[in-house]
Amino acid sequence: MSGPKLNTGPARGMRDFLPVDVRRRAFVIDVVTRVYQSYGFEPLETPAVENIETLLGKYGEEGNQLIYKILKRGEHESTGQADLALRYDLTVPLARVVAEHRAKLPRLFRRYQIQPVWRADRPARGRYREFYQCDVDALGSTSAAIEAELCGAVSQVLTELGFEDFRIRLNHRELLRAVLQAAGVPEGLHGEALIAVDKLDKIGPEGVTGELTARGVAPQAARALLGVFAGGEAENGALLSSLEAFVTGGAAGVAVPACLENLREILALTEGTPAAGRLRVDPSLARGLSYYTGAIFEIAVPDLAGSLGGGGRYDGLVGMFSGEQVPACGFSLGLERILVVMGERNLFPPALTAAPADVMISVFRPEDLGRAMQSALVLRQGGLRVFVYPDVDKMGKQLKYASGCGIPCVAILGESELAAGTVSIKALASGRQDTVALADAARTIQDFLGEVRG
Amino acid sequence: MSGPKLNTGPARGMRDFLPVDVRRRAFVIDVVTRVYQSYGFEPLETPAVENIETLLGKYGEEGNQLIYKILKRGEHESTGQADLALRYDLTVPLARVVAEHRAKLPRLFRRYQIQPVWRADRPARGRYREFYQCDVDALGSTSAAIEAELCGAVSQVLTELGFEDFRIRLNHRELLRAVLQAAGVPEGLHGEALIAVDKLDKIGPEGVTGELTARGVAPQAARALLGVFAGGEAENGALLSSLEAFVTGGAAGVAVPACLENLREILALTEGTPAAGRLRVDPSLARGLSYYTGAIFEIAVPDLAGSLGGGGRYDGLVGMFSGEQVPACGFSLGLERILVVMGERNLFPPALTAAPADVMISVFRPEDLGRAMQSALVLRQGGLRVFVYPDVDKMGKQLKYASGCGIPCVAILGESELAAGTVSIKALASGRQDTVALADAARTIQDFLGEVRG
Repeated sequence: MSGPKLNTGPARGMRDFLPVDVRRRAFVIDVVTRVYQSYGFEPLETPAVENIETLLGKYGEEGNQLIYKILKRGEHESTGQADLALRYDLTVPLARVVAEHRAKLPRLFRRYQIQPVWRADRPARGRYREFYQCDVDALGSTSAAIEAELCGAVSQVLTELGFEDFRIRLNHRELLRAVLQAAGVPEGLHGEALIAVDKLDKIGPEGVTGELTARGVAPQAARALLGVFAGGEAENGALLSSLEAFVTGGAAGVAVPACLENLREILALTEGTPAAGRLRVDPSLARGLSYYTGAIFEIAVPDLAGSLGGGGRYDGLVGMFSGEQVPACGFSLGLERILVVMGERNLFPPALTAAPADVMISVFRPEDLGRAMQSALVLRQGGLRVFVYPDVDKMGKQLKYASGCGIPCVAILGESELAAGTVSIKALASGRQDTVALADAARTIQDFLGEVRG
Repeated sequence: MSGPKLNTGPARGMRDFLPVDVRRRAFVIDVVTRVYQSYGFEPLETPAVENIETLLGKYGEEGNQLIYKILKRGEHESTGQADLALRYDLTVPLARVVAEHRAKLPRLFRRYQIQPVWRADRPARGRYREFYQCDVDALGSTSAAIEAELCGAVSQVLTELGFEDFRIRLNHRELLRAVLQAAGVPEGLHGEALIAVDKLDKIGPEGVTGELTARGVAPQAARALLGVFAGGEAENGALLSSLEAFVTGGAAGVAVPACLENLREILALTEGTPAAGRLRVDPSLARGLSYYTGAIFEIAVPDLAGSLGGGGRYDGLVGMFSGEQVPACGFSLGLERILVVMGERNLFPPALTAAPADVMISVFRPEDLGRAMQSALVLRQGGLRVFVYPDVDKMGKQLKYASGCGIPCVAILGESELAAGTVSIKALASGRQDTVALADAARTIQDFLGEVRG
């Protein structure tokens, strides 16, 4: 069992979560879960590992490069081939599950899924190779009520977590196409143009103009496009009107494109939800993934360069698996970024960093350890988290241990207490001490805890 | 977006968990978490992916074969080499974390960890390639109080889940060695002999005798060994006395081996815990893993061939990573097997299979969808899970949908209700219907739900 010291770190870009980390993660996940359930979403979980064909070709060429691939096993291991891969997002597995289990699921299936995904991305601040997504998706309806409820649900999550300044950027894939068309970008260059437009936040209008022309877009078209995106702080209604004028060429009597109708409907419907006032039409929002077909969203806060989450409508993805078209729309919250911003803004309840236990039980003779355990049971029945100090060290050492790891109370079972059927409760911060009957000890400790926690 | 239909199943030996499955899993995990916390255990989470050297050489040769290995990425992918691997258990990552973060963790660190592990085992009934373990471990003390509290905690979990007939088989690695020694198995054959003994449940005494002799154990030694294991239903105290006589050769005045003292102490201490009366000394219990050094446990129920969980003391494992010896002892509950037995015994609360929502809101004109969402918000504030039917289908179709997916109540916002600021609540099972002010609707629905659920 001895030998050279091994590397004890986690794999590159991944993290160990110590108790305080897990408590914070669980706090956020609990809020997300409770809110999503209140909107009628049901839980789904899929395996971390998927058949490699399920994932390849769904995330674009760059995505394919970032997928973790698993070696074949046994006699096939030496071929160096992979037959499995780690989950890259929660949307493709959802589409697979819906195609597989369609008959068992409600027609209007709404699910949430909170699980890790893995991407072999270059690690950076707030970017990890294992990270959790909190996805919420509604299948089976093309109604704008779906988009509105999704925006409402994620807004309620963020509001309950303490975010007050988030905005939901809103655009539509068909509107993007129409704008590109009207600006004079030929259809064959739409994909290239979207890649450039997607970088507007990072490289600014000049950067995008340069990249557009480098990708073959005519300078005049690039200028027209950037003119549309410069709409900036205009109010949603005015912005949609000017976009309508731009894509219809200002010609009277032309039918309003369906995508604009759809955005107006989404904006109107969200007014009755917790997303009221949060949505901002942003004609430059592109979203990277290729499977979106309708409205797209992204959540922005001022103190984060990236987004807290995003989503959109993808009416074609389930059909890629089943052949049957099933309309779908979803939103994905990024747990890691939410945690980063909450940490920086101090949004966690202070009690979350609490001790491993409410009370520690101390005895001082080996033959009393059995009584310590019986007493622990009584206190646990009183709703307390109880740590039994397992050794028979001196009282000073035991008290020091409890105080060192933040346990607020110690229940002392000394010789005299055991003889009398009592226990001495000591609050470490105040030094206050009471000797009470074991049956009353849980209540006394709860009182002491109430004082500590205010 | 079209093409040939893709394989929509999960990877071999893995499973998709639909809502009812997730609810059952969450129910068990909640009980496990609450009980472990009440014993002063803290949560820990580690990455699904570990550096491959962290795992190799920890689980024996057979274990190594079952580890999922991840291909190197980018330019190294074509080498066919693996640098990462999927977590195989929760104990080795714990030892790595403790070695890495020793200074940040309490000296008597107690942690629970409930996460999936992956083993490329042959799939079979109740055996999956992705499965959850619920581990609980205490580090930093060699006191028998640790073993006793661990047995107490897992017993409380199983009792709260509704198991009434489980037993904890108890043995000690040092006692096994002493018994092998006294039976005349030479030390060089101890490993081989343990592999054979471990199969006693599966292949019976004759099978084990045959395998022992096939592995080079003398027939006389094999007979002596099986004689010890035949102790069967003897009471713990008597069994330990006869084991003591066997390993000391019956010579008077020989010191009692420490392992027997340790087992007696564990048995005495558990009497004050929920494990009271659950432990059965079983000299044939071997446990597969090589890292155990002291007491070992395994949980048995009559209607399951395998075990519901197991564990033991492993005082050398942390030292393999850090060089510093840290005593440790743990227990691992197998979530999948617990779920299988609970399903067969009907131990889940009936409410767990409940509907996606408590109430569905129905409107019948597109312009009323906004009011539907506002009303949903009011009902959610009243603590209800609310599903807004997103389309404007006929009432019959909507009611049929709610009843088909088990939603017990429908809140109808027809023209007259909207005009009057009321809502009609219909309980689908009884047909009972009430029209009330929106502000009172949540209470009415709660009443209706109370009737449905008894």
